[in-house]
Amino acid sequence: MTRSPLAPPAFPALAAIQGVTPRVAKARYKAWDRCDLTYVEMDEGTIVAGVTTQSKCPSPEVEWCRDALPLGRARALVVNAGNSNAFTGSRGRAAVEAIAARVARHLDCQPSDVFVSSTGVIGVPLPIDKAEAGLDAAFGAEPCTWEQAAETIMTTDTFAKGASAQAIVGGTAVNIVGIIKGSGMIAPDMATMLGYVFTDAAIDPALLQQLMSAANRRTFSCITVDSDTSTSDTVLAFATGRAGNPVLSQMDDPGADAFAAALEDVCRELAHLVVRDGEGASKFITIAVTGAEDDASAHRVALSIANSPLVKTAIAGEDANWGRIVMAVGKAGEPAERDLLSIRFGATQVAAGGYALEGYDEAPVAEHLKGKEIDIGVDLGLGNGRATVWTCDLTHGYISINADYRS
Amino acid sequence: MTRSPLAPPAFPALAAIQGVTPRVAKARYKAWDRCDLTYVEMDEGTIVAGVTTQSKCPSPEVEWCRDALPLGRARALVVNAGNSNAFTGSRGRAAVEAIAARVARHLDCQPSDVFVSSTGVIGVPLPIDKAEAGLDAAFGAEPCTWEQAAETIMTTDTFAKGASAQAIVGGTAVNIVGIIKGSGMIAPDMATMLGYVFTDAAIDPALLQQLMSAANRRTFSCITVDSDTSTSDTVLAFATGRAGNPVLSQMDDPGADAFAAALEDVCRELAHLVVRDGEGASKFITIAVTGAEDDASAHRVALSIANSPLVKTAIAGEDANWGRIVMAVGKAGEPAERDLLSIRFGATQVAAGGYALEGYDEAPVAEHLKGKEIDIGVDLGLGNGRATVWTCDLTHGYISINADYRS
Repeated sequence: MTRSPLAPPAFPALAAIQGVTPRVAKARYKAWDRCDLTYVEMDEGTIVAGVTTQSKCPSPEVEWCRDALPLGRARALVVNAGNSNAFTGSRGRAAVEAIAARVARHLDCQPSDVFVSSTGVIGVPLPIDKAEAGLDAAFGAEPCTWEQAAETIMTTDTFAKGASAQAIVGGTAVNIVGIIKGSGMIAPDMATMLGYVFTDAAIDPALLQQLMSAANRRTFSCITVDSDTSTSDTVLAFATGRAGNPVLSQMDDPGADAFAAALEDVCRELAHLVVRDGEGASKFITIAVTGAEDDASAHRVALSIANSPLVKTAIAGEDANWGRIVMAVGKAGEPAERDLLSIRFGATQVAAGGYALEGYDEAPVAEHLKGKEIDIGVDLGLGNGRATVWTCDLTHGYISINADYRS
Repeated sequence: MTRSPLAPPAFPALAAIQGVTPRVAKARYKAWDRCDLTYVEMDEGTIVAGVTTQSKCPSPEVEWCRDALPLGRARALVVNAGNSNAFTGSRGRAAVEAIAARVARHLDCQPSDVFVSSTGVIGVPLPIDKAEAGLDAAFGAEPCTWEQAAETIMTTDTFAKGASAQAIVGGTAVNIVGIIKGSGMIAPDMATMLGYVFTDAAIDPALLQQLMSAANRRTFSCITVDSDTSTSDTVLAFATGRAGNPVLSQMDDPGADAFAAALEDVCRELAHLVVRDGEGASKFITIAVTGAEDDASAHRVALSIANSPLVKTAIAGEDANWGRIVMAVGKAGEPAERDLLSIRFGATQVAAGGYALEGYDEAPVAEHLKGKEIDIGVDLGLGNGRATVWTCDLTHGYISINADYRS
């Protein structure tokens, strides 16, 4: 698969996180010769928070994580690539239980301390023998880099994705590192694809969950590639506490703001990287809606635009077809007044007060649309609600990838 | 534009409707040498019912029709092709008023007796001079055939679309004829594209509206090409009363059932023709959802499947990727139990009770998917709710058509 034209030049330099050790191995879930099992070991005392898909047909991995998250403890993460194990009935559940049991024996911990994700084709039970052999190989492997871990969780992704940030908490520097995979079946309206955030911060599990949920609402929940929400979306955040900072337990604590901002930065960067690897993407599109009745309404209008195939194909064709944006605002089902609507591409206003601005300068708009980073602004003129979402264009590449993915 | 591979072999033979006279003319709304203005004159006493888009950014034509529909009277229909006149502020409204005024003078009727629709690019005010010259040409033209009228309302359509039915009402045969246009920007969740139904039946306006709304819910509201709802969707039904049947005024009247069924037949056939001309379509897909909690829930699940780009590209690739159907059920936000879900392609069950049927016969499924008419059945196993929707696949053709439509 050719690397996405929107990919960053290289994988970023990511700090090691004290108390976190990633390893990879070849479980050979498909007929390939690449690492496809990621095993991340975490020190005792590591806490966890997370969000999962709201799909009514979730994978057994999602159900497993949902059950384990309220306990707030983690010792390991296992990610299988090449088979999502979704819609596999009791056999899929048995595979997850077998993986958790194997790791629990290895680490002498509870099975519920082991978090499991799988990604790939739907409907084929994950082969337990391959998973167990892969785990045994991972247990004996040398620790790997974040880049190797990010490569190992990939499926249709064209590049490995990672991000990091640092925050000062009570005078102590804490590190946050994240990796993510995702390219198609991306419309994490309520959660996201498979993403993992690791930090050495000392933080109370309830506060970590609160911050993770808030970051999710402003980052992963604001991206869409194709409006199709996966059965397996999961984001988990693990905190080892090894930085030795004064434990964060509420938002009033010194440094909690800085930690929350750093966590959101990492989540936003990871979310953007997924859009930059959107199947067939040639443009990264930012859609900012202002003037809505409230933020939730602005978010729904922005997603209506971001999910419109006609808007996305117009951007692919570098066509300033703002009429399709009007259409997408109109179909969103949210409060909107046609005659108050304003639209801009880049810095250039093209429509205001319900009709096209006569004689607006088309040159900067055409120039903007030739670029890879497209900014669309829509003001509804009703109130103070605002939201920003990110998506990519819809091209022949998406059709080519998805008309013969399974075969 | 090549004729859609899903088009019927020829335009059907449609009866003349007593009291209805269509004519066409060249208003030259675009730089083309084709008829693009349709003018249909109707006898005094003609009544009208209709449904329009629920878009919050409707065209002035839609607003005009909404205002006139409650009066229930019609003398003329004008349809402009090549310019939708949507999002054009007060200038767009002025064009509609000028058209209605011109026709009202010609027929010595009220402007509100004149129904106007326009279809084409959004954001360019309809030129009043061209509309008036086109109308004058139409007034002096010979009456045309239904096929010519159906051709004249086309934009990106690749074939002219019409349908008809007959019903016996109180011993009298009444005819119903319909024409429609539509190919992209089709997701008439609450209304439809531009469709016109003409009948010589004698019927009370309130009953016609009731029957039209009911037929709309089961036909136009059950199709989608690309999930994008137009600013201009309109379906109007005109009844001249010239058949001389005993006037239908309530559902208990003899023949009302037959008329309602015939009206729904025409609407369903017109709706199907729009899907058969879906931009880039190579397969006509019927999605039947059963076992939902109620019919409304089944409808939303069916549309979630029909609007999934991953399902639509899989069908384009002739891939029995039922995992994507599971995904689309899961994201619909409707009651669903993964472990009760069953899925079939054609007559072949491929998944039941939450997992793939082992060793199901793939040969008839592959054979079915090679055809142009694809049947997908999903049973949710919860209740008695059912719904059927119709859509087409998503192919390179859709991208090609829409990445350079405006230019």
